[in-house]
Amino acid sequence: MEVMNDEFYMSLALDMAERAQGQTGINPVVGCVVVKDGAVIGLGTHLKRGTGHAEVHALNMAAGQAAGSTAYVTLEPCSHYGKTPPCSERLIAEGVARVVIACEDPNPQVAGRGIAMLREAGIEVEVGLLRERALRLNEKFVKYILTKRPFVTLKSASTLDGKIATRTGDSKWISNESARGIVHTLRHRHQGIMAGVGTIIADNPSLTTRTEVPGINPVRIIIDSGLRTPLESSVVTDGQAPTIIIAAETADAAKEEALTAAGVQVLRCGAGPRVDLAAAMSRLGELEIGSILLEGGGILNGAMLEQGLVDRVVLFFAPKIVGGGAAAPAAFAFDGVELMRNAVTLRGVEVEVLGDNVCISGIPELV
Amino acid sequence: MEVMNDEFYMSLALDMAERAQGQTGINPVVGCVVVKDGAVIGLGTHLKRGTGHAEVHALNMAAGQAAGSTAYVTLEPCSHYGKTPPCSERLIAEGVARVVIACEDPNPQVAGRGIAMLREAGIEVEVGLLRERALRLNEKFVKYILTKRPFVTLKSASTLDGKIATRTGDSKWISNESARGIVHTLRHRHQGIMAGVGTIIADNPSLTTRTEVPGINPVRIIIDSGLRTPLESSVVTDGQAPTIIIAAETADAAKEEALTAAGVQVLRCGAGPRVDLAAAMSRLGELEIGSILLEGGGILNGAMLEQGLVDRVVLFFAPKIVGGGAAAPAAFAFDGVELMRNAVTLRGVEVEVLGDNVCISGIPELV
Repeated sequence: MEVMNDEFYMSLALDMAERAQGQTGINPVVGCVVVKDGAVIGLGTHLKRGTGHAEVHALNMAAGQAAGSTAYVTLEPCSHYGKTPPCSERLIAEGVARVVIACEDPNPQVAGRGIAMLREAGIEVEVGLLRERALRLNEKFVKYILTKRPFVTLKSASTLDGKIATRTGDSKWISNESARGIVHTLRHRHQGIMAGVGTIIADNPSLTTRTEVPGINPVRIIIDSGLRTPLESSVVTDGQAPTIIIAAETADAAKEEALTAAGVQVLRCGAGPRVDLAAAMSRLGELEIGSILLEGGGILNGAMLEQGLVDRVVLFFAPKIVGGGAAAPAAFAFDGVELMRNAVTLRGVEVEVLGDNVCISGIPELV
Repeated sequence: MEVMNDEFYMSLALDMAERAQGQTGINPVVGCVVVKDGAVIGLGTHLKRGTGHAEVHALNMAAGQAAGSTAYVTLEPCSHYGKTPPCSERLIAEGVARVVIACEDPNPQVAGRGIAMLREAGIEVEVGLLRERALRLNEKFVKYILTKRPFVTLKSASTLDGKIATRTGDSKWISNESARGIVHTLRHRHQGIMAGVGTIIADNPSLTTRTEVPGINPVRIIIDSGLRTPLESSVVTDGQAPTIIIAAETADAAKEEALTAAGVQVLRCGAGPRVDLAAAMSRLGELEIGSILLEGGGILNGAMLEQGLVDRVVLFFAPKIVGGGAAAPAAFAFDGVELMRNAVTLRGVEVEVLGDNVCISGIPELV
């Protein structure tokens, strides 16, 4: 049973923010609950970049009754004029008496100024309630706002012997329905989805979000050094979502022209015969793609991991063993480390049991 | 909080049996609780092959006061004169009024006869309370009594990419202390521990049980087709436990002589240059080794699995990724299946989270 206290309301604010993941682009997800005289008088969540912030929605619902209230906000209210006026001003203008904030805004344009503004206006401010959960929720936003490069989640579904297909290349199906449901929800929650051209050629996937309820399709990003993506691929022809193909400088100009004519955006990253993945991440960041779900084969996964370009690893395991040695493709194919103590190690490990499948997730750290 | 009922006492009987795992050899573990007038009057567990059964210990503790009591037994009382007189007779002689049994004895010498004897004597008998737990507890006994071949538990500790060492062969350490504690408890609970000669040459392990409290060392079984086990290996010289080396017929007779002189038992299984693993299991069964913990490298694990000789798989995963492709040894190295739907699939999957390590266990099924 629940107990009414500050956490009771902040949890609701976080729950609301959580459900909005995937629809705010490079913006954070934020929830706000306004409480007065023992009752909720306003609820709000940030819905879409360029539209009202959580506090504004909640105070609008409170309809002028917020004087003397407590506002619970999952992220420090903004202090600057961006696409909307600063929320701190609105909280002050409404006469809110107390503001409870889960975490500071890492955005250098805010970074404590919102809190300072509230305090200067005589509002009682408390910071840090459920901070860890709030930061985890906005890990993509935090990475992007600080680096202007996308947060990359590497997802893979493999057998217990680390294979993503048998030695003949058969891969249907590895994981169970619960795991696949989570994967499609992850697609909704990332602005981009990235795969290698090998996957496009082998499986011709659509890389769309197929959830029980409608979801948002991420931008499809294909790493394709030599522009081998077939013009008849689903990602080129189906019009379900924009497609960006990233090629090396050396790739064929005529093929680029054909792809561009088909509506694909082709980017060149890498002077050599291979795509420069770090440069590609910077370019995608410039295009305001703040989060990417990497569903690569072993080589792309390995290269991204080795170059420190992966921010979170989400691995699904099905209770299967297929053998096949080097002939059966693995989830990770890279030169790797010499010593076990130098392994790429996940910290903040989270384990979820999904029927007979298991999901192991964490933040990879290179030694 | 617990609720007093039949399950309350049967759980205690199962708990007692569980703690005795590893000390009864090919015999089952069995617990018995005798209850009368609302109080426990006797407790017993089978401790060692050739000594008193659980019922006998419990009735001895009851010291002639068991008339009219209820006896909870985790396995059907025996009906035959084996190394000890039949327990059913003793329960009848003591005037026990009711016997609650978790599961029938699969031993063809018993198989319902114990229950029939009790019922013929007018005792009220109930069968099946916590049956699944009781059968799982004695899965090694069940396999051995029905097939005369050992129950094999394949244990491995790997990285998330399925490696048991880096490309340079470094493997110290993969799993965490909790996982290692479980592995040593598993060693105590198996009569034999099996490894390949490659492991002996690479790591010179002692293969003993190193638990916080003293444990029983399993018999060491080395699969060594060509008798390459060095005479100075720990398993040959340390005297911590008996060692059996299984070789092919073609292996050098002089090497066998030297190993035998050093106290090792050498068995020959397999007319060709490789050990015949199925024949080896039968031979070990004849030697009354009813359970084996397989801690092999990828090739031995793969061969045992592929030949259907593995009864349970226990895989520990550490949150590490080491890469290394074919150069880094994997937990399973075998030709494998062509189609994903023909994968060796675990049923009855159990997942245990051990800090940042995960244990996935189940019964492998070959298509």
